[in-house]
Amino acid sequence: MRLRNVKNAGNIVRESKYTIDLEKKGMNIRSIFNNDNPISIEIGMGKGDFLIGMAEKYPDINFIGVELYESVLVRAIQKLENLDLDNIRVLNMDAKYLGDVFDHEIDTIYLNFSDPWPKNRHAKRRLTSPDFLHVYDNISAGDTHIIQKTDNIDLFAYSISSLSTYGYTITRVSLDLAESDIPNVLTEYEKKFMDKGVKINYLDAYKKN
Amino acid sequence: MRLRNVKNAGNIVRESKYTIDLEKKGMNIRSIFNNDNPISIEIGMGKGDFLIGMAEKYPDINFIGVELYESVLVRAIQKLENLDLDNIRVLNMDAKYLGDVFDHEIDTIYLNFSDPWPKNRHAKRRLTSPDFLHVYDNISAGDTHIIQKTDNIDLFAYSISSLSTYGYTITRVSLDLAESDIPNVLTEYEKKFMDKGVKINYLDAYKKN
Repeated sequence: MRLRNVKNAGNIVRESKYTIDLEKKGMNIRSIFNNDNPISIEIGMGKGDFLIGMAEKYPDINFIGVELYESVLVRAIQKLENLDLDNIRVLNMDAKYLGDVFDHEIDTIYLNFSDPWPKNRHAKRRLTSPDFLHVYDNISAGDTHIIQKTDNIDLFAYSISSLSTYGYTITRVSLDLAESDIPNVLTEYEKKFMDKGVKINYLDAYKKN
Repeated sequence: MRLRNVKNAGNIVRESKYTIDLEKKGMNIRSIFNNDNPISIEIGMGKGDFLIGMAEKYPDINFIGVELYESVLVRAIQKLENLDLDNIRVLNMDAKYLGDVFDHEIDTIYLNFSDPWPKNRHAKRRLTSPDFLHVYDNISAGDTHIIQKTDNIDLFAYSISSLSTYGYTITRVSLDLAESDIPNVLTEYEKKFMDKGVKINYLDAYKKN
């Protein structure tokens, strides 16, 4: 993702009321939202269009966006500052450490247009690799529930076999989401892809824990 | 599939040494091949290019092609009559009755470019519907092993969720078989599709029985 550098991106991210401060004493997820609604996360929230759209559409679900790059996350923060949403927060961190933050608290994990890491030697970095699936075991409240969207057919093929082999049941699939009857909130990438006629792949997968 | 009618197709199919005669007294699959090699079947063998290619490539596997339409099967028979292959036979029947013919004898089931039956009310006719998966439970020698190829993205999406929900583990997937490193024998359809740049979807699935 090419982005002009936002000055003070780090400060803007850290100081936003939408950013979860992991250093804060006594920090716990429930106290942040002050309710018992289910929590969904998006790993790699990018500029936030999907998560903001979901938070607006589903006020009774709490949404947390996880994003490693503060230069990207600052764009989501800027959008959020113009809104007044109680049910959304962001986490500026590497998803591989999510097990240190959540303890069986997450209901649904959204993976949208994740980096495909095409080289085999980078397969462990894919967000549907067994290493990440192990992290998801530890953060999920009950059954793990993953919803993935991607235009990348190699990542999608990898994800199906990786999830299935790990013990997930894949309950819903589309190889052309725009033409399916599956409800959808668009990401910023997806809008561009759809304009170009690129087909979006979608899956919905559950694992008993 | 458009085909000029072959005169006497029915007689040619019935009288070929490659056609399994289910009416024959004492008919049993092992006596046909006279060996203990594993048996693979292709449901909807069409004009036979795939199965003949497989039989030539893997002489230590027995192959049985199942095809409902004798007007199509006769084309495969005509090819076979010019060859001398011990490890291939054909069955002119409706696949939904395969449980009456085989009793836990089949190693691998190939589903190539099956009819997608796009209407929801015809979903039961798809070769990866639960009704057919139940038939496959009863004909499989050990674990059921299905290999599917199709250019139809809706059939492929349906198959992934149907197989996964039924208890299959999907171990290998490609959404562009020609570009993958998966070994492949081409069907007559596939050759045409590839020439047009159509992507072929592939999956390999196992179920413990």
